[in-house]
Amino acid sequence: MPGPYTIGYGMPSHTHYLWFETKRRQEIIDITDEVESELEKSGIREGFALVSAMHISASVFVNDHESGLWHDILHWLEHTVAPWSPEKYKHNDTGEDNAAAHLRSLTVGHEVIVPVTAGKLDLGPWQRVFYGEWDGQRRKRVVIKILGEM
Amino acid sequence: MPGPYTIGYGMPSHTHYLWFETKRRQEIIDITDEVESELEKSGIREGFALVSAMHISASVFVNDHESGLWHDILHWLEHTVAPWSPEKYKHNDTGEDNAAAHLRSLTVGHEVIVPVTAGKLDLGPWQRVFYGEWDGQRRKRVVIKILGEM
Amino acid sequence: MPGPYTIGYGMPSHTHYLWFETKRRQEIIDITDEVESELEKSGIREGFALVSAMHISASVFVNDHESGLWHDILHWLEHTVAPWSPEKYKHNDTGEDNAAAHLRSLTVGHEVIVPVTAGKLDLGPWQRVFYGEWDGQRRKRVVIKILGEM
Repeated sequence: MPGPYTIGYGMPSHTHYLWFETKRRQEIIDITDEVESELEKSGIREGFALVSAMHISASVFVNDHESGLWHDILHWLEHTVAPWSPEKYKHNDTGEDNAAAHLRSLTVGHEVIVPVTAGKLDLGPWQRVFYGEWDGQRRKRVVIKILGEM
Repeated sequence: MPGPYTIGYGMPSHTHYLWFETKRRQEIIDITDEVESELEKSGIREGFALVSAMHISASVFVNDHESGLWHDILHWLEHTVAPWSPEKYKHNDTGEDNAAAHLRSLTVGHEVIVPVTAGKLDLGPWQRVFYGEWDGQRRKRVVIKILGEM
Repeated sequence: MPGPYTIGYGMPSHTHYLWFETKRRQEIIDITDEVESELEKSGIREGFALVSAMHISASVFVNDHESGLWHDILHWLEHTVAPWSPEKYKHNDTGEDNAAAHLRSLTVGHEVIVPVTAGKLDLGPWQRVFYGEWDGQRRKRVVIKILGEM
């Protein structure tokens, strides 16, 4: 019963970390191909692919590969969800200026589960997986963890 | 070791798609009974039920079966989260008028995981699962995928 | 093949409920140690830990253990996301005054999945798991459910 991705009894799993260091402080990056590629390596045919930011000032979300919409999202985060303005936040007293990035991460979420069916990401026709960097220009990580049956 | 829902080694899973074509452009629909019914078919006793919208202008969420609150949610999405006003958004330049529906999907989320315990959806006393249609009047889908042990 | 956490064929799982009765109506509580402790009891080495509020006026989220930021979150929920003001909401007609707590739960989300790797919660350096009580002063619950391989 042991397979290449199993330690003991249970189900196969596969884990991979993606690293980012964005040039801009806020940026939206399509990571669907990287998730699909890890799924292929895993050999898993039916299950769940968790894609989760390992930082509290970033998001992972599913939406549309359309640059106008990415612009709309960044504008909305600044003008509706949480303006950057560090002076508005108590978190600023710690020397950090990124409270807004935390609130943006809470709103958009930091993780998604993509279903895996017949060895493929079971996404709708326009769905793509994105990393949303809300406080970048430094090294940050996303974990991909796939669980299921081979 | 092979069972009715397994392809190979690992754990049982069960997949089902729900279709919607709402009469109104925005609508909130209770889908708890459909999820429960798929759980029964799966035979899974302990695990996770993923319920995920396959569109980027819709949500799946857990909340209250109360029509006043549904009205409050639709009002809040329009007046606080993201007004429909297509002219405000760059996404409008593509010919689409539904950028607001995308931002609403990002805020409320597009999926939930419901725990499965002793063969039942392990929901709190007032929790129900909803499909939130933010740009309807056309055929759209939700995937239900249940993973666990029988 | 049977193990201590399995009913039948499939994968091991472990379920635990945390109870809360907060003194204040809104409160943010770090529950990472409780989740880690349940993970140890489960014996699961690779998998997913679901942490999910069983109420529609509460959240579970991953963010920063910093009291200034907790203050910022509560202020933001009241002043940006959804003011308490019951008279603004139709849900108020049912005799409930907590519509705002529902909208806050929808925004922040009611659950997270934490990946489990090599027997540990696979969190980034600053990530902690929180219970967000948006309508407390009464007994409420969170379910922890861990699924994976031993």
